[in-house]
Amino acid sequence: MKKADRIYYGGDYNPDQWDDATIDEDMRYFKEAGINLLTLPVFSWAKLEPDEGVYDFGWLDRIIDKIWENGIYVCLATPTTAQPAWLSTRYPEVLPVDIQGRKRTHGMRVFFCVNSLKYRERAAAVAEEMAKRYAHHPALAMWHVSNEYGTYCYCPTCQAKFRLWLRRRYGTIEELNKRWHTSFWGRILTSFEEVTLPTELNDDYRFNPAIQLDYMRFVTDSTIECFQNEYDVLKKYNPEIPIQTNMSGFIKKLDQFAMTKHLDIVGWDNYPWPTDPAYFIAMKHDIMRGLKGGQSYVLTEQSPNQQNWQPYNKLKRPGEVRLLSYQAMAHGADTCLFFQMRQSIAGQEKFHGAVITHAGHNNTRVFRETAALGAELEKIGQAFLEGRVKARVGMILDWNNWWALELSSGPSQDMDYLKTFSKYYKPFYEKNIPVDVLSTESSLEGYSVIVAPMLYMMKDGIAEKLQKFVEQGGTLLTTVMSGLADENDRCIFGEYPGPLKDILGIWVEETDALRPEEQNIIKIKDGGESGMTFGRESYSCGFLCDIIHLRGARGLASYGEDFYAGSPCVTRNEYGKGRAYYVGTQPEDDFLLELTGLIAEEAGIEPLYPAAAGVELTARENERGCVVFAINNNEESAWVDFGDERLENLMTGEAVTGRTMLAPRDVIVAKINKDN
Amino acid sequence: MKKADRIYYGGDYNPDQWDDATIDEDMRYFKEAGINLLTLPVFSWAKLEPDEGVYDFGWLDRIIDKIWENGIYVCLATPTTAQPAWLSTRYPEVLPVDIQGRKRTHGMRVFFCVNSLKYRERAAAVAEEMAKRYAHHPALAMWHVSNEYGTYCYCPTCQAKFRLWLRRRYGTIEELNKRWHTSFWGRILTSFEEVTLPTELNDDYRFNPAIQLDYMRFVTDSTIECFQNEYDVLKKYNPEIPIQTNMSGFIKKLDQFAMTKHLDIVGWDNYPWPTDPAYFIAMKHDIMRGLKGGQSYVLTEQSPNQQNWQPYNKLKRPGEVRLLSYQAMAHGADTCLFFQMRQSIAGQEKFHGAVITHAGHNNTRVFRETAALGAELEKIGQAFLEGRVKARVGMILDWNNWWALELSSGPSQDMDYLKTFSKYYKPFYEKNIPVDVLSTESSLEGYSVIVAPMLYMMKDGIAEKLQKFVEQGGTLLTTVMSGLADENDRCIFGEYPGPLKDILGIWVEETDALRPEEQNIIKIKDGGESGMTFGRESYSCGFLCDIIHLRGARGLASYGEDFYAGSPCVTRNEYGKGRAYYVGTQPEDDFLLELTGLIAEEAGIEPLYPAAAGVELTARENERGCVVFAINNNEESAWVDFGDERLENLMTGEAVTGRTMLAPRDVIVAKINKDN
Amino acid sequence: MKKADRIYYGGDYNPDQWDDATIDEDMRYFKEAGINLLTLPVFSWAKLEPDEGVYDFGWLDRIIDKIWENGIYVCLATPTTAQPAWLSTRYPEVLPVDIQGRKRTHGMRVFFCVNSLKYRERAAAVAEEMAKRYAHHPALAMWHVSNEYGTYCYCPTCQAKFRLWLRRRYGTIEELNKRWHTSFWGRILTSFEEVTLPTELNDDYRFNPAIQLDYMRFVTDSTIECFQNEYDVLKKYNPEIPIQTNMSGFIKKLDQFAMTKHLDIVGWDNYPWPTDPAYFIAMKHDIMRGLKGGQSYVLTEQSPNQQNWQPYNKLKRPGEVRLLSYQAMAHGADTCLFFQMRQSIAGQEKFHGAVITHAGHNNTRVFRETAALGAELEKIGQAFLEGRVKARVGMILDWNNWWALELSSGPSQDMDYLKTFSKYYKPFYEKNIPVDVLSTESSLEGYSVIVAPMLYMMKDGIAEKLQKFVEQGGTLLTTVMSGLADENDRCIFGEYPGPLKDILGIWVEETDALRPEEQNIIKIKDGGESGMTFGRESYSCGFLCDIIHLRGARGLASYGEDFYAGSPCVTRNEYGKGRAYYVGTQPEDDFLLELTGLIAEEAGIEPLYPAAAGVELTARENERGCVVFAINNNEESAWVDFGDERLENLMTGEAVTGRTMLAPRDVIVAKINKDN
Repeated sequence: MKKADRIYYGGDYNPDQWDDATIDEDMRYFKEAGINLLTLPVFSWAKLEPDEGVYDFGWLDRIIDKIWENGIYVCLATPTTAQPAWLSTRYPEVLPVDIQGRKRTHGMRVFFCVNSLKYRERAAAVAEEMAKRYAHHPALAMWHVSNEYGTYCYCPTCQAKFRLWLRRRYGTIEELNKRWHTSFWGRILTSFEEVTLPTELNDDYRFNPAIQLDYMRFVTDSTIECFQNEYDVLKKYNPEIPIQTNMSGFIKKLDQFAMTKHLDIVGWDNYPWPTDPAYFIAMKHDIMRGLKGGQSYVLTEQSPNQQNWQPYNKLKRPGEVRLLSYQAMAHGADTCLFFQMRQSIAGQEKFHGAVITHAGHNNTRVFRETAALGAELEKIGQAFLEGRVKARVGMILDWNNWWALELSSGPSQDMDYLKTFSKYYKPFYEKNIPVDVLSTESSLEGYSVIVAPMLYMMKDGIAEKLQKFVEQGGTLLTTVMSGLADENDRCIFGEYPGPLKDILGIWVEETDALRPEEQNIIKIKDGGESGMTFGRESYSCGFLCDIIHLRGARGLASYGEDFYAGSPCVTRNEYGKGRAYYVGTQPEDDFLLELTGLIAEEAGIEPLYPAAAGVELTARENERGCVVFAINNNEESAWVDFGDERLENLMTGEAVTGRTMLAPRDVIVAKINKDN
Repeated sequence: MKKADRIYYGGDYNPDQWDDATIDEDMRYFKEAGINLLTLPVFSWAKLEPDEGVYDFGWLDRIIDKIWENGIYVCLATPTTAQPAWLSTRYPEVLPVDIQGRKRTHGMRVFFCVNSLKYRERAAAVAEEMAKRYAHHPALAMWHVSNEYGTYCYCPTCQAKFRLWLRRRYGTIEELNKRWHTSFWGRILTSFEEVTLPTELNDDYRFNPAIQLDYMRFVTDSTIECFQNEYDVLKKYNPEIPIQTNMSGFIKKLDQFAMTKHLDIVGWDNYPWPTDPAYFIAMKHDIMRGLKGGQSYVLTEQSPNQQNWQPYNKLKRPGEVRLLSYQAMAHGADTCLFFQMRQSIAGQEKFHGAVITHAGHNNTRVFRETAALGAELEKIGQAFLEGRVKARVGMILDWNNWWALELSSGPSQDMDYLKTFSKYYKPFYEKNIPVDVLSTESSLEGYSVIVAPMLYMMKDGIAEKLQKFVEQGGTLLTTVMSGLADENDRCIFGEYPGPLKDILGIWVEETDALRPEEQNIIKIKDGGESGMTFGRESYSCGFLCDIIHLRGARGLASYGEDFYAGSPCVTRNEYGKGRAYYVGTQPEDDFLLELTGLIAEEAGIEPLYPAAAGVELTARENERGCVVFAINNNEESAWVDFGDERLENLMTGEAVTGRTMLAPRDVIVAKINKDN
Repeated sequence: MKKADRIYYGGDYNPDQWDDATIDEDMRYFKEAGINLLTLPVFSWAKLEPDEGVYDFGWLDRIIDKIWENGIYVCLATPTTAQPAWLSTRYPEVLPVDIQGRKRTHGMRVFFCVNSLKYRERAAAVAEEMAKRYAHHPALAMWHVSNEYGTYCYCPTCQAKFRLWLRRRYGTIEELNKRWHTSFWGRILTSFEEVTLPTELNDDYRFNPAIQLDYMRFVTDSTIECFQNEYDVLKKYNPEIPIQTNMSGFIKKLDQFAMTKHLDIVGWDNYPWPTDPAYFIAMKHDIMRGLKGGQSYVLTEQSPNQQNWQPYNKLKRPGEVRLLSYQAMAHGADTCLFFQMRQSIAGQEKFHGAVITHAGHNNTRVFRETAALGAELEKIGQAFLEGRVKARVGMILDWNNWWALELSSGPSQDMDYLKTFSKYYKPFYEKNIPVDVLSTESSLEGYSVIVAPMLYMMKDGIAEKLQKFVEQGGTLLTTVMSGLADENDRCIFGEYPGPLKDILGIWVEETDALRPEEQNIIKIKDGGESGMTFGRESYSCGFLCDIIHLRGARGLASYGEDFYAGSPCVTRNEYGKGRAYYVGTQPEDDFLLELTGLIAEEAGIEPLYPAAAGVELTARENERGCVVFAINNNEESAWVDFGDERLENLMTGEAVTGRTMLAPRDVIVAKINKDN
């Protein structure tokens, strides 16, 4: 990303919807608000290429020049998310077939088959035209390819490509039969040509986890190819300009670790729900930072006010957008971008918040808040850009695992990987202990604690990696539904939890599923043995209850009820120089807060600073130093105690030290003085 | 409508389901019950035309003659609602394609493409055959075309016609692009041939309000053409006979103001739900009366007992059918017709109530109630026929507005035009202040108060009309979600509420959406300023909350909570000789009862008569005088006070004056003596 | 069924999923657990016939020999439930079209058109290959055809066959028009070629009960043909071996009385939900026994532990599988089979319980319980095999009635035949009075009481049969929604309940439908008249309320509320030497417990033995004597009093007599000593 004198601040701008006078006015407003980056022209393919191979870029030339004249950078988007109607009409093959087997008609955005060769040909062509023109334009800060990928298509092209993909993956149909365990329910195939896509037409989309799993991998791979198709064209013209694509929130349907290997920078759209707690949003930011191993990312979109597509679109309260913006930066964002700069007057999103509303002027609450934030960011300048978060706790997240776990029929329909992941993220967040999100491929070096909730799928090598980590002194914390299946969702033969059973020192014989209204009890054992002391004698638990036999581990707690009352539900096993914890049920949050606290203490990990509940703390460090973010998510004032450390408040220039009060919803961004 | 000596009383009759002996018995029962109109043969196309162009009308000749011999008139229905199977089989083009893109197979009624030329050809032919035979039959009181139109079709014929319709409407593709604002989400079209229908196949049926809006207009226009096709044939043979079609309840999917321009009389089927309050049914009657500017209408169907198609089909309580019948007449109906006279022994509706039940005889509660009502209607005679209701309050209702408002994504999913409309209708109803329902094209002359709830769409001229109305001394009452969009659902640029902001003297900067469980408070300002005194200091409100800036208006009340507490939520603006009220939220009913009471008082509008709660009063006036309806919707006795006025009870001949008691669920129909 | 020395114990086994070593290990485990029957190869078509007409049975030969060497019998399944992919690919006609009109693609099991000639040809061929090889194998205990039939197909073949079926049934299109009452809604047909299938494409699947009813009959007939196709082939090779097919639970979509006429033995899969009360499971067992007139049946599947396909798959508690197994035997099962013997490692059901789990060894709770039950069954030996239950109460169950009743639109959407049936079954169950389930074709001889809840459809002859039964001294108990329609769902003209009105001595004029939250009251009349004394003065009732006129019957109780308060709701009519009861509403359970108690007492029917609540008692008698089952469904100990009778506990050999205690969830299986 071309470096600016401060964080990129701005967002999506659709000048093709406006006349020149309005655009000129916008430029004045943008400068007033401290805007220094605009993303465009995301949806302008039909305008840029009104007929096949006929380009009209004049209007865009003028816009980009005008933007640059106003000192604003451009994030240039290939407009390939919404193909022109003529393309769909002339080449219906670019339109997808849906999971019901229905050929779609033109309409909507993100509405093409990612495997269509014709789509790829035309997308590359328009991207090339754009690269030729602007790859060396001084305004160009970065590329933005297409928009919010995520279409699943079931057309004949996809079917043919899937068969090829499988042939490449498995070599022979015998190997595929084995991997998919097709002897179950009589599904043996005699040729790759007999593979049918998992749709509603054969119910494989809900009754055949093996094929679904591979289809999800295939769609990720196809989407990467589709992205790479444009990436390669853009790179050809100027390899210096970084390329990203914005991910639609944090989505399950594409493996984002796989995708982001092919991006220069991660881009994502943060649209929290009013009901999302702060820790949940923070977790998503940490995931985004984790996608490229801790590299800072591009916050490509957030709303400057209410959304339009939620059931009840609450206004963002005063200060709320500022809070969310700093939260993003605190966790690794190096941009702060809005969708959108000027509110569209029509279409599905006409009531979506924008910096400049339908009122058309700058005398609005939203604009004033935007401009105030812009002024602050100018003061902060480059202080934390490219800064890294340092964490000793790593949490393993895996898309393949997510898919397989939730495709599973039984033991409970409420299997929710992300919710479970967040339940284990939350206590670290609340203690302001930084967490890195890792893939199954990440190195575990440098971490003291690895948390792997519901690590259902045992990819090749992961068990060995965890084993080595524990042997060498690390602490592993894992849970019910771990260690069960291989990469093709075949259960691992032998006692559960499969390849983790030695590290954990247990055998899980059975797993009971409780109804939402049912509960069991976690009874803490006398702490003498384990050396761990919990605040209460018992905690509630539910959802799933493993029936565990100890095979070397010690029981930290046992069930209080049902026919398996008295049998262990939380265990700890000394293994090599380290130890491995297993939580065989879903405990209430208080238990996890205590357990993770004891584990962190044992590993010598401490919070960044002491602070009142609801105060979120992070630190980002770059070559210029370390910047601390303190965010008060409370509606009341709250303290943070910097102790003896002396910091400089980057918005005010004032010194910050010791016990410091934050106003309701207020934020401190402060640099640690090097001579501390 | 050919005039009878009294109101038309009777209903749908399907003699093709019965043998001669049964039909003869029916005639005896009908006379016993005072029946003087039968509607037929609604579903007999296949019987009348067993093969293409081969007609068999002999049986119908005999039936109609027999009916007329028994002194009963006929409402003659073209049987085109259910095409014969041979027509669908021979010409599959008559069958519709549904919103999922699926070609339908033969079955069901109202199951044809309204744009199918073959359907129209055959429908006109059978209608012509009928007209030739019966247009001058003495029994013929009126025509009834088809039945409950309302099919949405998405077949290639409709697609082609829609493109033509758009070309006629917008002239050029550039104009269409502008009107539909296709630059949003990259939907620019280069030719009308690229227009695709808004179906589930492209998700435009939920994500593209502009095209949906035009498609709904197009379906209304197509349905009108389909109706007109038969209308013209029927008129050719006897222009004297009035023509109607029965509307399926009060439906959203066809613009009924547009449709009824093409009818001689409005016809509609009243099937209230057991849970519908009386005011809600009254409102629908007033809407029906409003469709043709106050002209009385034909109540084409109601059930003489329980329905069969509701989830729980409660029996109509004793007296309930009588009450509902008089309510219809009180609001403008000039017929009282049932579906149906004799209960079908099979099919989907075999358990639907009928005057003659499966028991087959007249010794039933339903028959006795029917006959008693028939006797009363005979006494009342022509007294109120063609009588008009006089109202000084007009409420604007607009189908295009209804569609656009509810198509809108944001600010809340709970947008419900009809519910909001009914919330403003209700307080006038409760005060027995007559209300006329007006279209956006209606003249406002003669009205003192115009209520326009959620007038979201500002059609050309409507703002000017309201402005003139207020300038000249009228009172306007409008609400949140008004003045926002144009006829293509493009938001009106500039401060809200767009062209209404001057009349209202306000700027609505933002609109908050509350969850159903959330509330705010309306705090009444000291009434000194506005001269308005409310009964309480505060009321609850919810759903939506406008944040309003006063630009000349005065705040009558302000919010009690949230970050916009203290800002105005109900305003009043003096404008010209009149005034305009704005309610920027959804208040509890008590507030609206008081506000509309104060507004009515200010305009010098009084209730018809004082009466106990739950007593519904209306008056219909024709050249023969004025007839008052007093309907006690209570389960207990209740009073009405006619004061000094002297009336004649038309059922009993007795004089009515002063404070008069109504038995539970009882009705008085009384004529005002002219010498009063 | 070839007789073994004891009940067949075992279940589904899929050796094609395992290697030889595992299979050998399985054999050891099976012997340890007392297993003596294995069902296979249900899903192995593709393995047995890898290409059209190319068979590979070698592996199966070896398996069957090995099984037999281990002293275990085989239930040999034709593998036709899951056709090979090559068959679907080469002949797409075998794939069904669904109710949405969509051609399905290959996938899933039970996924073929039962009318496909190609499917039938290939199914017969593979069945013949199997019969040739194994029809005289000493291990062969019985045949098992296909698996869980129940596919509804709407393909062109089915349409053509349905037209033929109708032609055969009705002869002329005029007769069809009459039977389907096509004059309603204008559906008259001029040719059988105009018949369209009742699908979502014409909404006949929900709006046309007549065609739906016939289509459901047609699918049953088609499924029977499809089954018979294989049956005939198998019989040809060895007529001695009995043939069954396992029914998927107790399903509505196939008429199981019709189907089981074509089976030698009834087979069914018992998968109760954790929330199913014991009486409900018992009722299903009694239904299964009733399907072939009291003949014992094959329990083809049950789970040895939790299922995987329920929302929350609770573990089967210790002892629960044993309890459910004995309950099945108590009601007529002559096998005790599990799905499955060894847990599949992958696929949709990988988490379904199995005798040998993924752990792979026998040291599990499930295995121990299985082996313990196996040991008990060995002791019991042949004691109750082929034993019959003797009942004096018969309950009429009819699939056509079930379909028609629930297809009906009105009076209430909550019409639930099976629930109503179970409400009348329950009180007999609770009193341990044996009940036989009868079809409308069953002889009523030998029964004292016939219960026919909601006998809506009056098939030819049923009214006469009931009339004769009552005349000759029997007691009939029937209810609301009885006597209304004929076999084509045409209402029976005249007063309700049609042909039952004389026996019952009443006229039902109207039927009110109550919302779930509404209730009425059953007020008991002074018992002096009827001689019946109830424990309370009133009971609640709801759902439907008939308004009844007495025509000879006496009212036992009347409504306490609503406009029909005081009119009778429960009646009793003396008729011939017998009497007929009518319950015109849905009473609370307590009322039915008392009413059926009084009716049983009147008929001189007594419980098997006195016992505490929750203790289930049955007796099965064969030529070797009578075996009593006492099952304690309680979580606490409970008593049964055998009085003076002396029995022998078949598990322990001990004598049992007098008041005997059962431990929680315990079971006694005891033989009555003949010299009693």
